[in-house]
Amino acid sequence: MPAYSTNMRLKFPILALTLEIITIILFAVFVVYDDGKHGGHGAHNNATHHEETTEQNPLTLYPMFQDVHVMIFIGFGFLMTFLKRYGFSSVGLNLLLAAFALQWGLLMQGLWHLEEGKIKVSIFKMINADFSTATVLISFGAVLGKTSPVQLLIMTLLEITIFGINEHLVAEVLKILDTFSPWCLFARYIYILLTWKGVLYVCGSSGGSSTYHSHICTVFLWMFWPSFNSAIAEPGADQLMAVTNTYFSLAACVLSAYAVSSLVEHKGKLDMVHIQNATLAGGVAVGTCADMDIGPFGAMIIGFVAGIVSTLGFKFLTPILASNLGIQDTCGVHNLHGMPGILGGIAGIVAVALGKKDGSAAMQAAALASSLGFALVGGGMTGLIMKLPFWGQPPDQNCFDDSIYWEVPEEEEGEESLAHGDHSMNKAEA
Amino acid sequence: MPAYSTNMRLKFPILALTLEIITIILFAVFVVYDDGKHGGHGAHNNATHHEETTEQNPLTLYPMFQDVHVMIFIGFGFLMTFLKRYGFSSVGLNLLLAAFALQWGLLMQGLWHLEEGKIKVSIFKMINADFSTATVLISFGAVLGKTSPVQLLIMTLLEITIFGINEHLVAEVLKILDTFSPWCLFARYIYILLTWKGVLYVCGSSGGSSTYHSHICTVFLWMFWPSFNSAIAEPGADQLMAVTNTYFSLAACVLSAYAVSSLVEHKGKLDMVHIQNATLAGGVAVGTCADMDIGPFGAMIIGFVAGIVSTLGFKFLTPILASNLGIQDTCGVHNLHGMPGILGGIAGIVAVALGKKDGSAAMQAAALASSLGFALVGGGMTGLIMKLPFWGQPPDQNCFDDSIYWEVPEEEEGEESLAHGDHSMNKAEA
Amino acid sequence: MPAYSTNMRLKFPILALTLEIITIILFAVFVVYDDGKHGGHGAHNNATHHEETTEQNPLTLYPMFQDVHVMIFIGFGFLMTFLKRYGFSSVGLNLLLAAFALQWGLLMQGLWHLEEGKIKVSIFKMINADFSTATVLISFGAVLGKTSPVQLLIMTLLEITIFGINEHLVAEVLKILDTFSPWCLFARYIYILLTWKGVLYVCGSSGGSSTYHSHICTVFLWMFWPSFNSAIAEPGADQLMAVTNTYFSLAACVLSAYAVSSLVEHKGKLDMVHIQNATLAGGVAVGTCADMDIGPFGAMIIGFVAGIVSTLGFKFLTPILASNLGIQDTCGVHNLHGMPGILGGIAGIVAVALGKKDGSAAMQAAALASSLGFALVGGGMTGLIMKLPFWGQPPDQNCFDDSIYWEVPEEEEGEESLAHGDHSMNKAEA
Repeated sequence: MPAYSTNMRLKFPILALTLEIITIILFAVFVVYDDGKHGGHGAHNNATHHEETTEQNPLTLYPMFQDVHVMIFIGFGFLMTFLKRYGFSSVGLNLLLAAFALQWGLLMQGLWHLEEGKIKVSIFKMINADFSTATVLISFGAVLGKTSPVQLLIMTLLEITIFGINEHLVAEVLKILDTFSPWCLFARYIYILLTWKGVLYVCGSSGGSSTYHSHICTVFLWMFWPSFNSAIAEPGADQLMAVTNTYFSLAACVLSAYAVSSLVEHKGKLDMVHIQNATLAGGVAVGTCADMDIGPFGAMIIGFVAGIVSTLGFKFLTPILASNLGIQDTCGVHNLHGMPGILGGIAGIVAVALGKKDGSAAMQAAALASSLGFALVGGGMTGLIMKLPFWGQPPDQNCFDDSIYWEVPEEEEGEESLAHGDHSMNKAEA
Repeated sequence: MPAYSTNMRLKFPILALTLEIITIILFAVFVVYDDGKHGGHGAHNNATHHEETTEQNPLTLYPMFQDVHVMIFIGFGFLMTFLKRYGFSSVGLNLLLAAFALQWGLLMQGLWHLEEGKIKVSIFKMINADFSTATVLISFGAVLGKTSPVQLLIMTLLEITIFGINEHLVAEVLKILDTFSPWCLFARYIYILLTWKGVLYVCGSSGGSSTYHSHICTVFLWMFWPSFNSAIAEPGADQLMAVTNTYFSLAACVLSAYAVSSLVEHKGKLDMVHIQNATLAGGVAVGTCADMDIGPFGAMIIGFVAGIVSTLGFKFLTPILASNLGIQDTCGVHNLHGMPGILGGIAGIVAVALGKKDGSAAMQAAALASSLGFALVGGGMTGLIMKLPFWGQPPDQNCFDDSIYWEVPEEEEGEESLAHGDHSMNKAEA
Repeated sequence: MPAYSTNMRLKFPILALTLEIITIILFAVFVVYDDGKHGGHGAHNNATHHEETTEQNPLTLYPMFQDVHVMIFIGFGFLMTFLKRYGFSSVGLNLLLAAFALQWGLLMQGLWHLEEGKIKVSIFKMINADFSTATVLISFGAVLGKTSPVQLLIMTLLEITIFGINEHLVAEVLKILDTFSPWCLFARYIYILLTWKGVLYVCGSSGGSSTYHSHICTVFLWMFWPSFNSAIAEPGADQLMAVTNTYFSLAACVLSAYAVSSLVEHKGKLDMVHIQNATLAGGVAVGTCADMDIGPFGAMIIGFVAGIVSTLGFKFLTPILASNLGIQDTCGVHNLHGMPGILGGIAGIVAVALGKKDGSAAMQAAALASSLGFALVGGGMTGLIMKLPFWGQPPDQNCFDDSIYWEVPEEEEGEESLAHGDHSMNKAEA
């Protein structure tokens, strides 16, 4: 047993209950139902236009909200079930983090835009709250297997708070009005990297290989990504544009990802790991300029390039990172969210430069500075805090092991012993 | 072999075909398409308001209808796949019962509200028909493993007929206008209990343990529960309120369920059985007052308490029921639907008492009397009828065995013999 | 090793990249966003009516589009995962073909209806593009296991091009205005048969048996079929009619399929293969007359008969086809899409004859002639082209084997060796 144990008995329940009770109190003070009468609340720049529509039927966005919900809870939630001894954790902790993140996200986004001293909850704000959880779940993908539920709740709390502040600064103070500012996305990426560095431990095999079970999550993400990129766009032509761009970017991305996978693999075979990740790169990359007038073929070019870059990343970059820097990218965060995200940021800047959207160079520079500052300070701080030894994190030789934080049924352990390995002989594996 | 065999050859096809042919004849006589011209059909109290909206676009509710559909057919349908030798039955019989229940439900609800002698089918009525199936599927969860397809069809027929009459009385005669009357829900619960008692047999192990496969059903239910609680609310502000209340009640419930699970388990570990059930208790409990003005924090308090109550129920009540009363609650009906349902009923009454909704005490008492009467008489009768020995139910030693009513592929039997148990030692089959 | 190897190294990437680059160029030339200003583009007969609605909100159809998307990518995409050594191929190639088919379909349908020289992409057109993929995926179900990715891309290219031309002729030149012309559907069926004949090889066991994993796909298809049959119907009463007809046809079909399955099986047991396929026959059969005024009971009669016909087909026709004609119908294309499709065609003709819809006998005859001509020439040609020996198709003894075109993880091969069989001892299995 290590000096600090992985026993969660008091730490976890107290933290979870405290966070929830504080949240309920803040809700009691600040959160009311949307009554359809809006001042200048502007959760996003397009809020004004948006409200004109939703005043007529407050549930117009509800189907898109449910699509985003499915992406968050099914798509991200079950993507990591290929980790054989870590299925309970990957799906169970996902639900926990997402449920807290959406409540906290609603507060952290809404507190900057009080209307008559209140946060008025609309479907639009629920979608934004769901978005908050997306970054948390990507971060979870980077650090899972090596973290305790307590650490993850703290990460969620810090991450959402920090980005609430940064995005308020960028959107409201600097008047950068892009729905998905490339700087904000880039900052989130840097933040994840630094947090990751904080909990880094070079595990042995995570005991996983892609199966068609996790493929179903890829397909759910692939199908609903047009909703993700368009849900908070201005209703009407802009929203249709965002749907169209994402739909065709994703389609083009599939062809290039398959082609490059076959090109780089032995005997021209396809690799399921490439397919399950690189086919989504088109959705990530087109995100920043989804609601810009880049033409369907422009979106397809972005998707086409993203599919190539992401597949090459899995083939050539991941092994280099693993052997040279000791970074084990179990969930392909670099290749799916990192490089395609940067590609998308560049595409967005080019599109703005070509006059597809208004913008000011000075404000953009300030936005970059703010975002980088928050990412460096926030990510570094989060990483350091998570490194503190008393959060009940798993000992190094036991990462990716469900049985530390979950009751694993005895009979199942026996039955799936081939797949699960013998828990008691764990150390031999490391 | 028992005196009455489990051979379904004539019983089941004749019953199924007869029921379907009678249903088609009743449809031919009574059911027409909705033509948008409504009198006072009022399938529910809010029908009048509702129609004003749907007259403009009859498919406004269609996305919510599909969410409810997914909950019924995927959420309830695959929740029991953790039963290892009973996967065919749990998913296959679910589809059968749901398909019959929605047809019969449309008739039993609609016959009380004929317009010009006809039932005019709208999306609104289809949602109500889907709701009919929900109670049937919860009942199925209570009696599965010990019942034949014939018994289950009879149970469906009786249950929907009885509740059609009771809910007509409560809604129309007594003018109790709550969307989900707590008495109706409570009556359904009592009914299920009595029916259950009728088929009760103390099986050995049901051979199941929670896996992340069934977790995906929990998540589908969790995601779409806001649609379930709001689909038939009055469009506009009330519907948004129902969505908001359910969304935050469910989120708060997750935190308290995880916290309590960790608190009561050995070494602070989490238990997947708690997580997969108690995280839904917030949706059940907030149901009765989903469209009341209780405030988002009020909904969260209900969810928070429901998560605690449900988890404690799984930990402490289920073993007591099993050892003292011999009730084996395989699917957690008590802890997920029973106690949170009662909690929700109390919350609804408190909310009405606090003036959140109009109501008359005398009528409420009459509604309670009516509902209890129907539940006791109906549940007792259904239980007795199902106990009759000639419905082809499985012999006591063979409950939870797919091979009684399904062709189980030989090759699969061999392959999964470890999981399935050794079929050749199964007396009935050999 | 055969003279022509299964190595895809150059063939597949070059073909995939070339097709995608050509597609992007055609998109750059022809495809623009929908600006809401429409001339007489009429992708379908109901376009005029349709636009009046969508001009107000271009995303009205978006929820139905997502339902269709789920059917295509989850429903069809994972239906074949019961093939144990062929899971990667069935889900992976499905995504590839669908992604190409929807892009190519948009071009092939849109080029006949240019507005100001452009194809204006709307949600309506995206739904039609998704429909294009449905036939391709049914064809894929007929030829899978015996075809290379290169062959499948060529099949997709030819199939969509041929039917784009035929359906243009039928809809625009002959003014047959039915949404789903029975002739067009029949032609697609003949086409699939001929293509199938082209690649025919009598494999040994495909190593698959139905499990509840593939059952979830059936249920997704079952739930969303009402969207499939109604998505491009005229908004308002017609669309509601199409939803209603499909919903009740599917429900009636379930009862008759279960009843007949029990009737024809040993000891009255149910067969999962029947259940998973025949329960969908009601959706196929009602397709042609979904938007006709046949009454809910009329739709139920169609569904009821389709469930019977389809189940009997699985029980009695499939073995005859296999033993006498050597056609191994792994995915039940005959029984699910063939016979119920023909039944639906007949029902549609009867409905038109009874005056439920306008029509001209001469034009109908011409439509039949055109459709048959395209099917015979197109299907024969596609079959011959796919038979050419240099597309890298698998050798006869290796059909239904993932490892030919996919990197199969070593560890998994070991682990699942019982299920996967020993790849090198393949022949012994047959």
